[in-house]
Amino acid sequence: MRLSPAITELIQALRLLPGVGPKSAQRMAFQILERQREGGLRLAAALTEAVEKVGHCEVCRTLTEDAVCGICAQPKRRDSGLLCIVETPADVLAIEQTGYYQGCYFVLMGHLSPLDGIGPDDIGLDILAKRLREEPVQEVILATNPTVEGEATAHFIADLAHRQRIATSRIAHGVPVGGELEYVDQATLGHAFSGRKVIDMN
Amino acid sequence: MRLSPAITELIQALRLLPGVGPKSAQRMAFQILERQREGGLRLAAALTEAVEKVGHCEVCRTLTEDAVCGICAQPKRRDSGLLCIVETPADVLAIEQTGYYQGCYFVLMGHLSPLDGIGPDDIGLDILAKRLREEPVQEVILATNPTVEGEATAHFIADLAHRQRIATSRIAHGVPVGGELEYVDQATLGHAFSGRKVIDMN
Ligand SMILES: [Zn+2]
Ligand SMILES: [Zn+2]
Repeated sequence: MRLSPAITELIQALRLLPGVGPKSAQRMAFQILERQREGGLRLAAALTEAVEKVGHCEVCRTLTEDAVCGICAQPKRRDSGLLCIVETPADVLAIEQTGYYQGCYFVLMGHLSPLDGIGPDDIGLDILAKRLREEPVQEVILATNPTVEGEATAHFIADLAHRQRIATSRIAHGVPVGGELEYVDQATLGHAFSGRKVIDMN
Repeated sequence: MRLSPAITELIQALRLLPGVGPKSAQRMAFQILERQREGGLRLAAALTEAVEKVGHCEVCRTLTEDAVCGICAQPKRRDSGLLCIVETPADVLAIEQTGYYQGCYFVLMGHLSPLDGIGPDDIGLDILAKRLREEPVQEVILATNPTVEGEATAHFIADLAHRQRIATSRIAHGVPVGGELEYVDQATLGHAFSGRKVIDMN
């Protein structure tokens, strides 16, 4: 059976979403058409609105429809002197959800990847360098991913910061809290050993 | 962190899709905004087009944007004299994918459910009764789901067909081909026993 063209196109467009295979796309399309037509129109409107309006914060580069995002707009965040460097807006969200960090962010929207032709300017390091020169940043916290590219990117940014005599730190990597050693991957376990801390017995 | 309103609304609208939890909705929204903006607009257009144009086939009630669906439009299907009753358009698709059945369908878009106020007319049984009276149907094949409601619906339709002296059959339920007894649920195993067939030794 050939489904009618409008249904076929809807299923194919749904497959563009991450994690949606042919079966789920079909289930989604039928559910929308059978009993969520208003929801379907709401999603269409939300997609159009977001794609047309959402751009990047001119201070930290995260996704927002405002010129300056909700975090950069808070004076107490800017005054903290802390600048955390992450690869994606999702990383910002994950860190914010801990409630632990109260400084600012800079979102690279990627990482250095010379083989893919992604150099410093492509991830906004020209903007970051200017910010480090002009703003009273006291500490740069490197929270790029613990991958080869993330580490190389962190190293490159540490260099930038050192040239401005700004202190830099790298977030700790190791065994997740509550995780069992047995199920932790080798690289993480390696990080956990090389980053081990002396226990102060005093 | 409060995400900006347009991103928040996109995440909430994506959660209307079946099987999409808060984490996947967030991942989908960020992926669209970071590197699939054209895909996002394509999905918005497909949703609008499908919701506005797709209705029900006037012969079999399945979802289609044409007055009569691609199956009902085939004379050799209509001439087969076979009419298979299913609950949803997805069931039609599943049966079509076997390539085994070459007759027509009638899609209930649900099943009888007196407790939810869903009676015969709500699942198109008035239209079906008319079709059984007026068309030369030779066999009604009941392929509703093997649930309490599906069985009750099949029973009700078998009655309708018998009043027109039309032969009826129920598709077989039992252990899936390739399935292991050990992993089959009790109800299916019960069906498999009660529907057992004599092995002809000749
Ligand atoms: Zn910002
Ligand atoms: Zn039809």
